[in-house]
Amino acid sequence: MKILAITGGVGGAKLALGLATKYSAQEVAFLVNTGDDFEHLGLPISPDVDTLLYTLAGLSDPARGWGRAEESWNCLHTLSDLGQEAWFQLGDKDLALHLVRKNLLADAHSQSEVIDYLRSRLGIDHAIFPMSDSPVRTKVKTTQGEMEFQQYFVKERCEPTISGFRFDGAELARPVAKLLELAFESIILCPSNPYVSVDPILAVPGMKQYLQDQNAPIVAVSPIIQGKALKGPAAKMMHELGFAPTSLQIGKHYAKFIDGLIIDQADATSKEAIEALGIAVKVEQTVMSSLEDRVALACSATHFAAQLAAG
Amino acid sequence: MKILAITGGVGGAKLALGLATKYSAQEVAFLVNTGDDFEHLGLPISPDVDTLLYTLAGLSDPARGWGRAEESWNCLHTLSDLGQEAWFQLGDKDLALHLVRKNLLADAHSQSEVIDYLRSRLGIDHAIFPMSDSPVRTKVKTTQGEMEFQQYFVKERCEPTISGFRFDGAELARPVAKLLELAFESIILCPSNPYVSVDPILAVPGMKQYLQDQNAPIVAVSPIIQGKALKGPAAKMMHELGFAPTSLQIGKHYAKFIDGLIIDQADATSKEAIEALGIAVKVEQTVMSSLEDRVALACSATHFAAQLAAG
Repeated sequence: MKILAITGGVGGAKLALGLATKYSAQEVAFLVNTGDDFEHLGLPISPDVDTLLYTLAGLSDPARGWGRAEESWNCLHTLSDLGQEAWFQLGDKDLALHLVRKNLLADAHSQSEVIDYLRSRLGIDHAIFPMSDSPVRTKVKTTQGEMEFQQYFVKERCEPTISGFRFDGAELARPVAKLLELAFESIILCPSNPYVSVDPILAVPGMKQYLQDQNAPIVAVSPIIQGKALKGPAAKMMHELGFAPTSLQIGKHYAKFIDGLIIDQADATSKEAIEALGIAVKVEQTVMSSLEDRVALACSATHFAAQLAAG
Repeated sequence: MKILAITGGVGGAKLALGLATKYSAQEVAFLVNTGDDFEHLGLPISPDVDTLLYTLAGLSDPARGWGRAEESWNCLHTLSDLGQEAWFQLGDKDLALHLVRKNLLADAHSQSEVIDYLRSRLGIDHAIFPMSDSPVRTKVKTTQGEMEFQQYFVKERCEPTISGFRFDGAELARPVAKLLELAFESIILCPSNPYVSVDPILAVPGMKQYLQDQNAPIVAVSPIIQGKALKGPAAKMMHELGFAPTSLQIGKHYAKFIDGLIIDQADATSKEAIEALGIAVKVEQTVMSSLEDRVALACSATHFAAQLAAG
């Protein structure tokens, strides 16, 4: 297999769609964060998996980025009428996928088997691996105490000030066996949140080693442009952790792990400082507004990796 | 308390609505069949309970009789797209109630607590008791073998020829304690299917004795009019069991248990034959098309019971 793309969240899924559009299922596979997973209304929720599934299947809502397009909310509104918590938005169509997931897990299928079933039913050819079949739960340390990621992200709308993260259960997790059987020529970190999308994946014991053992160039795409994240709390988190929210800081965060970093044209002046960390830098137009943008950035990232491999 | 109404299914719920409209929560309570309950898509389904809840809350679909009015089916259609069985129709709003039920049961609440919660949230004042908090599952014996009631009723559309019924788990069931604390002045069997709505209730050990110990007249409303059931398979079942589908046969079925039977005007000629069984008979207009019809039949049934009590 040529390419392994590591992703979580809406920004990551955009580049993943570019890669899946450009490259066949024999050429690219996806490794996705499940640290955001949680139980809600008795249903197992995997936000990053589902964002990737719906995006690759062409079903995602283009405005929200998460959930399904042409969604209805009759169950959610009725749940609220019945006195249930309705802060996590599950649409009526989305609920169907969650009922299927719940029943497959209850039948002793693994998370990777569930993803494989859903992928196939949704017409997605590309392999999608969860970071682990064991539960790992990202906990956010805040000035209001530690909380579950979705509580922080959705219920509290990222408002609490953070001081760190904990990946509960990571010590017992392992990468899924089917991933470990594969070898890759390049590894791409999609422009996902480094702390809560990529770091949980790298926190799975054996994962970092597995990725480094590929002897494949590891190329990241910075999720930060001109001090801001296009979507999500990455810049706010960096600020609260005491870091400047810059692509340079993204380079520092991934230093000694990645070989190359793609930064946006708007951050071109950071190139030398990042290179000083021993990371090759490519300056690109990284804002993905159209499908063409996604494909172009996918090509750019894979070509950059090929360049680095060629030395 | 004045009246206990025993009900299951759509026809029973019609008279229940008439009773609840006419009499206060201090005057009438409901005892409902849970033998139809089953698990579907990992959700606990209580068809007769929900028909009663939605009917009393004014939320039921007037055309179908079951489920909610102004319902949407986006989850169900998506479940079908995802390869799941979609023969049991759960609308998007209805799903919300089932998620609540599932979660309350998972939190170790009893079926009667769940019903009480839902009743209250739906604005119903009247007490509703399940026949038991333990699972009792009506099994239908057919020429195609024994099957679960909902499989027979919904999936197989009552087509298999039946030879009998079994109330699986009944031997371990008991009436709920809160019902046993109450005393009633009259007991009304709503025009529900005798075999699969009323008999499962009476099969709960201790239930028949409890009802008879009330020393209250027990009045049934025949669900059969001119050899047919207005809704459901009662007449077909009677025929397949080797009985004439008549209100006389309803009398024979409940003989030694009921004191009075209300039959439709169209069956007036059966009056004497039923009286010969030792059952008092009242001839009425029993087709309930409007709310006024429901209230009128409710009044008629309670007045008939009062007459019988007066001796």
